Amino acid sequence: MTDPTSPTVLGSYPVDPRNRVKRLHERGSYDRASVWAILDSAMLAHVAYSIDGQPFCTPILHWRDGDTLYWHGSSASRMLGHLGHGMPACLTVSHLDRLILARSGFNHSVDYRSAMCFGTAKLVVDEEEKRRALDALIDRYYPDRAAALRPMAPQEFKATAVIVMPIEQASAKVRAKGVGDDEADLGHPVWAGIIPLSTVIGELEPSDTGVAVERPVTLDAYRPGRRFDEALRETQATWEAKK
Amino acid sequence: MTDPTSPTVLGSYPVDPRNRVKRLHERGSYDRASVWAILDSAMLAHVAYSIDGQPFCTPILHWRDGDTLYWHGSSASRMLGHLGHGMPACLTVSHLDRLILARSGFNHSVDYRSAMCFGTAKLVVDEEEKRRALDALIDRYYPDRAAALRPMAPQEFKATAVIVMPIEQASAKVRAKGVGDDEADLGHPVWAGIIPLSTVIGELEPSDTGVAVERPVTLDAYRPGRRFDEALRETQATWEAKK
Repeated sequence: MTDPTSPTVLGSYPVDPRNRVKRLHERGSYDRASVWAILDSAMLAHVAYSIDGQPFCTPILHWRDGDTLYWHGSSASRMLGHLGHGMPACLTVSHLDRLILARSGFNHSVDYRSAMCFGTAKLVVDEEEKRRALDALIDRYYPDRAAALRPMAPQEFKATAVIVMPIEQASAKVRAKGVGDDEADLGHPVWAGIIPLSTVIGELEPSDTGVAVERPVTLDAYRPGRRFDEALRETQATWEAKK
Repeated sequence: MTDPTSPTVLGSYPVDPRNRVKRLHERGSYDRASVWAILDSAMLAHVAYSIDGQPFCTPILHWRDGDTLYWHGSSASRMLGHLGHGMPACLTVSHLDRLILARSGFNHSVDYRSAMCFGTAKLVVDEEEKRRALDALIDRYYPDRAAALRPMAPQEFKATAVIVMPIEQASAKVRAKGVGDDEADLGHPVWAGIIPLSTVIGELEPSDTGVAVERPVTLDAYRPGRRFDEALRETQATWEAKK
């Protein structure tokens, strides 16, 4: 049986100077499976765009539908006012996994996973597409939740903007090698090692106002103590299976 | 006694359209104490810059000395080749603290802390300044460690680039309010609540090659189970006190 998420089946993004990993290129890859795994492990991304020559780096909540990235904002936000018929953008997701303390300053490092995606960001103007995207924003993170919510009011729909960016090119960059000291440094008398990091889920807190409703099993991915990146990959898979 | 980190003592950044928080401006602030607290709570930042009209969003490790931000890279990296006499940049740090599940889609949110800093990024060319900056990169994160390491070789010094960006303007944006449902929605029968997130330190792993050296007490800030953002603020304070 073919693994549907294998790099061979999903293919790779085209590579040119824009997305080629220049520095430490052995850490880079361009296949969709690698890029998507990093994107889907995070809710928070940063988007770079430029207005009148001034770059902005804006944190956003993103979601991915195949080769298309979405994020949302207020219709009043700065980014939105300049989107027009599209603006070049770069969306990046990064995970910091381990701090690496080596025996030389030069070999100090971090283990990380990052994905950079390039494309043209546009406003979603079609009402049906926008409605589907806003439902996906909820359901991708919280399975089956959109239909259970109080329905969206017309002024809420109007006040919310959805931005879409088909991924034209992307790269993934991963370091996962721990301490990489030079052979000659191994006798240097300083502590060397790894400080591991993980982002974990705490105890869920029900809202203390309003009617009490039992927590649905569809939120079970968010178990206290679990790694957040794992929960996010699970909810993405759940959402994709139901689409 | 005056608190040396109070907004009054440290002052605020000048505000104009570039750094004014447009959307949900009640979440914004411009005082150094607020901005610095967010910056110092993270090692990972994202920098936006533009090359020939194409924006890039690059993850970097940053450190702060007063009103000056530093990050480092390889002399071979893309960003470095275009720095020249300076390029406009925006460095952003974001923390995702809680997922907020409300009773309407519109009131779904996240609690977060983010800081955006604007300035002109330049290469550090002065050798003495570069040497001090590279020591600071180590000591700011790992107190007193730079002097204990195997000294830097001339080719390592050459291969490493340090970028400096004085903060011209900045803004902090924080949401920390939990579930904010409309009064009218409180009876809607859907679970609402908070999913808390935290990035925590794991068990430190000594390097299993080379000479074994006892872990110095200067690394005690990185206690297993502790929040990473707290450890980083502690090591920043330790470093500032010794400078």
